[in-house]
Amino acid sequence: MLFLAPVGSLIAIFFAIFLIWRILRHDEGTSQMKEIAECVREGAYAYIKRQYSIVGIFFAVMFTVLFFLYLRGYLIIFVPFAFLTGGFFSGLCGFIGMSVATRSSARTTNAARTSLNGALQVAFSSGAVMGLMVVGLGLLDLSIWYYFLDWYYRGLDEAIRIQNITSTMLNFGMGASCMALFARVGGGIFTKAADVGADLVGKIEAGIPEDDPRNPAVIADNVGDNVGDVAGMGADLYESYVGAIVATMALGSAAFIRYGISLKGITIPLVMAGVGVVASVIGILFVRSGEKADQNELLMALRKGVFTSAALIAVASYFVIKLVLGMEFIGVYWAVLSGLIAGIILGLSTEYFTSDKYPPTRNVAKSASTGPATVIISGLSVGMLSTVIPVVVVAIAILSSFYLSGGARDFNLGLYGVGIAAVGMLSTLGITLATDAYGPVADNAGGNAEMSHQPPEVRRRTDALDTLGNTTAATGKGFAIGSAALSALALIAAYREHIHLLGKSLNTDLMNPRLLAGLFIGGMLPFAFCSLTMSAVGRAASGVVMEVRRQFREIKGLMQGEAKPDYARCVMIVTKSAQKEMIVPSLLAILAPIVVGLLMGIEAGVGLLTGALVSGFVLAIMMANSGGAWDNAKKYIESGHEGGKGSQNHKAAVVGDTVGDPFKDTAGPSLNILIKLMSMVSIVFASFIIANTLVK
Amino acid sequence: MLFLAPVGSLIAIFFAIFLIWRILRHDEGTSQMKEIAECVREGAYAYIKRQYSIVGIFFAVMFTVLFFLYLRGYLIIFVPFAFLTGGFFSGLCGFIGMSVATRSSARTTNAARTSLNGALQVAFSSGAVMGLMVVGLGLLDLSIWYYFLDWYYRGLDEAIRIQNITSTMLNFGMGASCMALFARVGGGIFTKAADVGADLVGKIEAGIPEDDPRNPAVIADNVGDNVGDVAGMGADLYESYVGAIVATMALGSAAFIRYGISLKGITIPLVMAGVGVVASVIGILFVRSGEKADQNELLMALRKGVFTSAALIAVASYFVIKLVLGMEFIGVYWAVLSGLIAGIILGLSTEYFTSDKYPPTRNVAKSASTGPATVIISGLSVGMLSTVIPVVVVAIAILSSFYLSGGARDFNLGLYGVGIAAVGMLSTLGITLATDAYGPVADNAGGNAEMSHQPPEVRRRTDALDTLGNTTAATGKGFAIGSAALSALALIAAYREHIHLLGKSLNTDLMNPRLLAGLFIGGMLPFAFCSLTMSAVGRAASGVVMEVRRQFREIKGLMQGEAKPDYARCVMIVTKSAQKEMIVPSLLAILAPIVVGLLMGIEAGVGLLTGALVSGFVLAIMMANSGGAWDNAKKYIESGHEGGKGSQNHKAAVVGDTVGDPFKDTAGPSLNILIKLMSMVSIVFASFIIANTLVK
Repeated sequence: MLFLAPVGSLIAIFFAIFLIWRILRHDEGTSQMKEIAECVREGAYAYIKRQYSIVGIFFAVMFTVLFFLYLRGYLIIFVPFAFLTGGFFSGLCGFIGMSVATRSSARTTNAARTSLNGALQVAFSSGAVMGLMVVGLGLLDLSIWYYFLDWYYRGLDEAIRIQNITSTMLNFGMGASCMALFARVGGGIFTKAADVGADLVGKIEAGIPEDDPRNPAVIADNVGDNVGDVAGMGADLYESYVGAIVATMALGSAAFIRYGISLKGITIPLVMAGVGVVASVIGILFVRSGEKADQNELLMALRKGVFTSAALIAVASYFVIKLVLGMEFIGVYWAVLSGLIAGIILGLSTEYFTSDKYPPTRNVAKSASTGPATVIISGLSVGMLSTVIPVVVVAIAILSSFYLSGGARDFNLGLYGVGIAAVGMLSTLGITLATDAYGPVADNAGGNAEMSHQPPEVRRRTDALDTLGNTTAATGKGFAIGSAALSALALIAAYREHIHLLGKSLNTDLMNPRLLAGLFIGGMLPFAFCSLTMSAVGRAASGVVMEVRRQFREIKGLMQGEAKPDYARCVMIVTKSAQKEMIVPSLLAILAPIVVGLLMGIEAGVGLLTGALVSGFVLAIMMANSGGAWDNAKKYIESGHEGGKGSQNHKAAVVGDTVGDPFKDTAGPSLNILIKLMSMVSIVFASFIIANTLVK
Repeated sequence: MLFLAPVGSLIAIFFAIFLIWRILRHDEGTSQMKEIAECVREGAYAYIKRQYSIVGIFFAVMFTVLFFLYLRGYLIIFVPFAFLTGGFFSGLCGFIGMSVATRSSARTTNAARTSLNGALQVAFSSGAVMGLMVVGLGLLDLSIWYYFLDWYYRGLDEAIRIQNITSTMLNFGMGASCMALFARVGGGIFTKAADVGADLVGKIEAGIPEDDPRNPAVIADNVGDNVGDVAGMGADLYESYVGAIVATMALGSAAFIRYGISLKGITIPLVMAGVGVVASVIGILFVRSGEKADQNELLMALRKGVFTSAALIAVASYFVIKLVLGMEFIGVYWAVLSGLIAGIILGLSTEYFTSDKYPPTRNVAKSASTGPATVIISGLSVGMLSTVIPVVVVAIAILSSFYLSGGARDFNLGLYGVGIAAVGMLSTLGITLATDAYGPVADNAGGNAEMSHQPPEVRRRTDALDTLGNTTAATGKGFAIGSAALSALALIAAYREHIHLLGKSLNTDLMNPRLLAGLFIGGMLPFAFCSLTMSAVGRAASGVVMEVRRQFREIKGLMQGEAKPDYARCVMIVTKSAQKEMIVPSLLAILAPIVVGLLMGIEAGVGLLTGALVSGFVLAIMMANSGGAWDNAKKYIESGHEGGKGSQNHKAAVVGDTVGDPFKDTAGPSLNILIKLMSMVSIVFASFIIANTLVK
């Protein structure tokens, strides 16, 4: 059945190419629309070019470090190269997704001039390209390496061969993780600095509406949606996807060796991923809406796609697992199902806490009547409360996937089950990411409509898509956090297994003081990381504010619409500061596990990863949902409730939204990467740390 | 040497009584000052009366439950009674501290009419009464029970007798914990609801200054300082103190049994506490300042007291441990020192992040120039960054106390060392709490000066004391959080030992899925708890707002100063809502460990405690320091920087301060109790959970 992985990956890639072809057939609209789209595209390319050149230096340095570690015998030769391929494919995903997104926005606007369904099709297709590319390229990278290593180690005894393959592949995620971190942190800082900067001067000081073409930062704002929400999100989930699969393969090797079917055990994650890709393609075909669709029907159209895929996976994986592992291990199927169901509940819970249809967000809106302070308190309060359901659901998913897959009789089998739950949750990624990555396209389309002065019904249609995009973005964030938590857990379990394979015994008793110390430090790191990224947004935004003020002051006729602002300069300023600001948080994530491991021992390292996972997971949910609730509370007021646009209540709600921006789009999502990347770094540097730690 | 404990406790109590006598000799000042003080006192008594009557019902119910558990054989007969004495003494501490505080404020104002040093003496003496009562009554309660149990079990073999004594005494903290929770949560809600309510209507709507006697909520605000910051803080630290001592005694019994000196091992915490009490009394005598003292000299005066005590303890405990345990176990001394030093660094770190003398708070003030949103972001960012040093310090304290006391050769000895570090940190409690609990008295004295229209130099003197009080309050909070973390850790270790004694084996491997699930849920609980307490403040405050508006509207001549507002009604309204609102968070803390233990097994319970400890510790620091930074950034602006009082910047800073109020005075400090109380509940209910859990 292993053929399903490369075949599935190729199906995804070819279907994505077909979608790109279909998108490009659409017309970009009037010359003004084209021009605006061109500006955004140029800005996005300028950003990506600079980002990749800095990331390129980083990858060159890391490659040298890893190569040096290979020369010293700490790593096998493939790891530095796997590191490069992981980074390359992750970056490629982001690049393709972003390219297509910037090419789709004007086409979406243009399609919206005639019909809602047409606009939905273009925007959603663009999101689908991102989703399919992530799963397609991820699976392709893994398949190629798997076949290569299988061939390379062909002379060895099967058990040892499999162990070699899985422990080598376990090292693969780090390249993707590093790329993801830069994309998420850099993109997150960019998008929010531009957004906050544009709003602070444009809306508040100059009193011009959002997306007004006179605002010099408006293009940077639109670029931000693409580099942050499309490329960043894609790289994040690429990493979860690859990480969950390689971790589960490593756990499978340990679990099934005593049953003599390790080969089958390690291929299941790849096969499941292949099944998921096919199911996602089918689900994507199901997404369409009628012209008169209201918001609920649009949401239903997207949901139909996701649920179709999930149902297909739920059915198909039963037969796949029965066929590959046999009825003896059918428990593994229940682990898949645990992950799938947990993923769906996570999405729904996020929606409940951040949609203006439900009490939490409405209460935040209501609290605006007593000013900004109460908006902040109630938003934080909603975010904190919203952690309960996801945490309990993930805890139940851990327990059920462990025990249902047979953890009570065989501990390793149970851990494998936890990994499989992560793979199960991520198997719908192709379509879940599609529903998520379509949002920024709709958002940009709305901006394009505004700037090119389209008639109101066009903006109404793009707004309908955009609002829907906010809901799916929230759902997608819940899904990204939940899958990051399960993936990170699988990685930690695989790390532990990896250390055992390196011949080092590990005392992971909770009362081991080194582990406890690591747990405390790990629990603190997400807070320190958020502090760094949030203050980075502040600094970068103040650069934008300065520049926008300067342009308003120096460019004559700008406010009258007679002169054009210098969009590119704003883009360049945010690009530069985002690149500069992403370095310290990234180094923190990479160095923390190495330093703690070297100074306090490998057990402290395990504690660090677990502590960061637990507190990072909770904090990420809180930040995402507080931010979402503030954003939608503001929109709820803008739509005419609690005093409406321009009222004191609205001003108070805008404060909440501004605080929420770095919460939900910079700091919060970056935590997903932090918890996975630290596990990856620990794995890659394990032999080095074991050999050189001060605490043997 | 055991006699040091009861003797020390009696010294503390008698010295406190002497201080009370000395305070009461001072004159309360003019009739207007007396009247105001009387109002505050009445309000505080009204609050305490109602609080204790509700707590009384709770204690009656819990006593019945515990008695029922005794009848069913899950507990020994002493536990229900110990529960009552713990609650009683904790409540008594709070009552005495608050009584004295409310009697000292007018006397401080009156003393401030003639000299700064006189005012400092009165206010500080009042704080010292609280500090000494906490350590004195805590140690007295423990000594009485110790001697009683020693006599009761006199017939048994020494090893078994000691085990019986320690495992019985381990159950003693829960009464104190429950009392502390109610005091902290109820008092925290009260004080902030009154504060926020008074400010929202008085300062912002009616435009009258703080502490203006025309504001109907002004007395409630002053009452809040006493019930929240004095009684609540006292109960909190009483619980840390008792908890750390009994946990370390239990760990000592396990550690020293193989060396045949368990009796010595278990008495060390009591002896150390006795030494600390004597050192605190000496330190208190060192606190005095010259009349022309500026703020730095005042701070030095307080610091001199604390450092004198710490130095005395550092020296004396070396000889005590050498004498009692011998040079073989002198490592235990280094554990004491680790705790002492960690406590001091925690205080200094808190000061750095929250004092307007250092960059973090100044940056928060500076960020006010771009509005309230950036104030919030920068304040949160400071709070998050401020977690780094305390967490690293506590991690190092854990490691050093474990290894220095001999954990490498004997694991149990190491855990005992961790407990001893907690006891070491808390040994200075008598004086640390004194420097902390004096703040609200100075604050109230300032209010009294304002309301009784004293000449400006009086207010200037009380303001100097008040500002200093803010610094020491911040330091005290850092100390309270750090000691709570170490105490909770010692309790968790003792809990694990307790379960072993109950004959149940425990798999506390980090990868045990039940433990992991518990870890996740535990990591989430502090967030849920904060959400509940913060929204409670919001609801209670809105009740105050309504009432103050009503009085302004209905009482004729109020704004002209011709009629008096109905202070008592405001106090009653906040009292009622604080009592109502404290119930749900409290039940969460008590029920969570029981429910998780019953449904998911005892290992999940251990995970829950550890997860809550790690994330609660970090979150508590963040909330306390964000709140402190906002508060002092506002004061910094008010003192004429960044635009000064009344500017747009000031308004933005007020938003930060209002958000910070429930952070630093309600939710944050309550987390200290949460992490300790859950451990206590787990210990008391351990046999019941083991017998009835669904997961054997």
